[in-house]
Amino acid sequence: MARNTQVSADPNAPPITHILAEFVAGHPSRGWSDAVEHEAHRTFMNWLGCAVGASHHEAGEAALAAIATLQPAPQATVLGRKDRVDIASAALVNGITSHTFDFDDTHLKTIIHPAGPVASALLALAELTGASGRQVIDALVLGIDVSCRIGNLMYPDHYDRGWHITGSTGGLGAAAGCARLLGLDTQATAMALGIAASQPIGMREQFGTMTKPFHPGGAARAGLMAALMAKHGYTASARALEAPRGMIQTISAKCDWREATDELGRRFEISFNTYKPFACGIVIHPSIDACAQLRAQGVKPEQVERIELKVHSLVLELTGKKEPADGLQAKFSVYHGCAAGLMFGRAAEEEFSDEVVNRPDMVALRRKVVATVDDAIDEASADVTAVLTDGRRIHVFVEHAIGSLENPMSDAQLEGKFHGLSDPVLGARPTSRLIAACWELAAAKDVRGLAALAVPA
Amino acid sequence: MARNTQVSADPNAPPITHILAEFVAGHPSRGWSDAVEHEAHRTFMNWLGCAVGASHHEAGEAALAAIATLQPAPQATVLGRKDRVDIASAALVNGITSHTFDFDDTHLKTIIHPAGPVASALLALAELTGASGRQVIDALVLGIDVSCRIGNLMYPDHYDRGWHITGSTGGLGAAAGCARLLGLDTQATAMALGIAASQPIGMREQFGTMTKPFHPGGAARAGLMAALMAKHGYTASARALEAPRGMIQTISAKCDWREATDELGRRFEISFNTYKPFACGIVIHPSIDACAQLRAQGVKPEQVERIELKVHSLVLELTGKKEPADGLQAKFSVYHGCAAGLMFGRAAEEEFSDEVVNRPDMVALRRKVVATVDDAIDEASADVTAVLTDGRRIHVFVEHAIGSLENPMSDAQLEGKFHGLSDPVLGARPTSRLIAACWELAAAKDVRGLAALAVPA
Repeated sequence: MARNTQVSADPNAPPITHILAEFVAGHPSRGWSDAVEHEAHRTFMNWLGCAVGASHHEAGEAALAAIATLQPAPQATVLGRKDRVDIASAALVNGITSHTFDFDDTHLKTIIHPAGPVASALLALAELTGASGRQVIDALVLGIDVSCRIGNLMYPDHYDRGWHITGSTGGLGAAAGCARLLGLDTQATAMALGIAASQPIGMREQFGTMTKPFHPGGAARAGLMAALMAKHGYTASARALEAPRGMIQTISAKCDWREATDELGRRFEISFNTYKPFACGIVIHPSIDACAQLRAQGVKPEQVERIELKVHSLVLELTGKKEPADGLQAKFSVYHGCAAGLMFGRAAEEEFSDEVVNRPDMVALRRKVVATVDDAIDEASADVTAVLTDGRRIHVFVEHAIGSLENPMSDAQLEGKFHGLSDPVLGARPTSRLIAACWELAAAKDVRGLAALAVPA
Repeated sequence: MARNTQVSADPNAPPITHILAEFVAGHPSRGWSDAVEHEAHRTFMNWLGCAVGASHHEAGEAALAAIATLQPAPQATVLGRKDRVDIASAALVNGITSHTFDFDDTHLKTIIHPAGPVASALLALAELTGASGRQVIDALVLGIDVSCRIGNLMYPDHYDRGWHITGSTGGLGAAAGCARLLGLDTQATAMALGIAASQPIGMREQFGTMTKPFHPGGAARAGLMAALMAKHGYTASARALEAPRGMIQTISAKCDWREATDELGRRFEISFNTYKPFACGIVIHPSIDACAQLRAQGVKPEQVERIELKVHSLVLELTGKKEPADGLQAKFSVYHGCAAGLMFGRAAEEEFSDEVVNRPDMVALRRKVVATVDDAIDEASADVTAVLTDGRRIHVFVEHAIGSLENPMSDAQLEGKFHGLSDPVLGARPTSRLIAACWELAAAKDVRGLAALAVPA
């Protein structure tokens, strides 16, 4: 569930992003004194001398060796496209696209979306190294375990102060997974984690912009590069995570260290992963599910006089938009969610298109939704009654929506979701082959075969 | 000056970096239940579907357009080397090497080392675009102004909680500078700052490892890529810096907003930049300077019976290592610093080599240094008396060491420092040509000429 608390936030800060941007874009060339101009040359020269002087130091050598892995450039697949780019860029872009629809997986204990950072880094690296499916699955389970355990350790304080926890823990998961895929030993793996520990990514203020999906993409790239650098001897603190001025204590006041180690190797956090059936925030899911159940029971939109919706106050607080103007706004409208559930029995990305949102029958239907707050109903539940034009009342109560940990999507439902996403890009038959390759991944000798199936003909 | 405070630090955290590294490196393949194994396939498949589904969304398009700028790979100079790499990697490596010797510039109000992130990004980008020297200098002044102003705004709280402020503000400076170099308008520049705002880099725990110089390098790369993405339409929050869940409030409890805007365009933070004459922490500089002055007055090491050194307690706290075993330890030894000043009259990187540190005459000389604490002496000062074998006492008091804001290095001294760094790499004559190109940078039609001079023959 989304959280709204933040310690000591100042909502009245002046618009310094804009002020500084205007300054940088608009200040005249050489708009300063001779002293400043001279200092600029001194600054440049001193920087240049330092860089030339250390140009053959082992840190530069190790970084260059890692970078050399990236070249020549076209190494890895951009999923769903014919483009091929270097592996770091593939990790970045696939991490972005996998989170773009807010439709990816959720580790509910921490609201981390764990696959984006980890899988995006792993597939790109595996394409280069020719890793087996077995190696990729092993690295995926272990990488996700690391990022979610660090998440457990810091959540909720870390999230409350403004961090998008998917990006801030994702680099560690990607580094761990890539270190595993590269076969690094404990020492080098610790260095990979250490390099990644200096790069937590993502502020919640970015929600609603493209920089939100940048977070898992950036984390994927950072973790991949951290593992490559560690492989080539780049060093970090061996206590980069836990030291007083290490990552965790710097970005979280909650440091429950046991979460990192309790039942390590016996309890796997991927067991608590969930998948969204609907392309919007989880808080709307029970309402959509209930309306889809009404539709399954034969209720038709034209029969409906009124939809009585009872939900926890948080649902309306976060998604109470009555008249969404476009697809993005509709993702924050429980009214639109109910209408989509009743009209289509689903709410995937296309049901949040601008076109569908503005269809007259959809506008009319969502105006029939009357929402009331009832805090006796859990945030994860919804109580819906369809009042029909003939006076009948049909009631559905959803305790746990489809896609929750208690009521997970079936494999068949997951395949259906996959088809909905992939068919428009790859076509239905290639998508079926790709789905089969996913189920058989652990047995694949070389993961490049699967990657090739994700490219349009 | 280095600061030692941190709110609520836990020095007794368990070694989770090591524990998790061992787990990732050592856990057996498929060492989990069938349920976990199956969940891994579901996780992978769901991630893949999301990425394929959004593969032609505008966020992916914008990121790919930015990445396309990087190809083909060999675009920019690695300073001091013949290697050529893509511009993002050049920004990274030059940022690393420029900070590797801890010998770069210092904005003393915040202890930011401002040039590393900004200049490393700018030179790489300018090589690709063929920018003029004038454009580079403009972007350098403005970029440094942004990063140091954000530093002023958050310092010292932000630093005290564990952030390496050079990396955490450097991405903003690099983004600002690159946005300027690309000629972005206010709106796109705000987006560049916004994308960079999700990527503060660097924890102080990394000091003493290669990840410390990674911080300015990573910041340079992040800022450069943020500007490229903004140029291609990638979006971020327009209040990414100042909003309650934006960068600044997330990583600092001190938010003195006026520092961002006071005298903007009239006071330039680059005016407060300083350059280190000695390749070690600033706290030792007054002692080295004093001993170098003794040497200039004719005092020879073999005449010395004893060096009486009086300094503030912080000096011994941070650099009190009496018997350094190697070059890295010597950087934390005021004793070695005094010996180097008296023996060589300088303390550049070679005076901190393992070889020099272990020379018998250096070992003997530093054992003659008797340090005592006197908190009446400022941290930035040193009181040194050479007691000679003939009984004479020669006294030097250094109020502000050479290289401080009050007693800056002259241009000639800066050139001497540059020769010390660059001659061993490029040779003395090419170095002189490079120095001349630096002084004439603002007049250069194309900065690629200068970059070519930084490559060994």
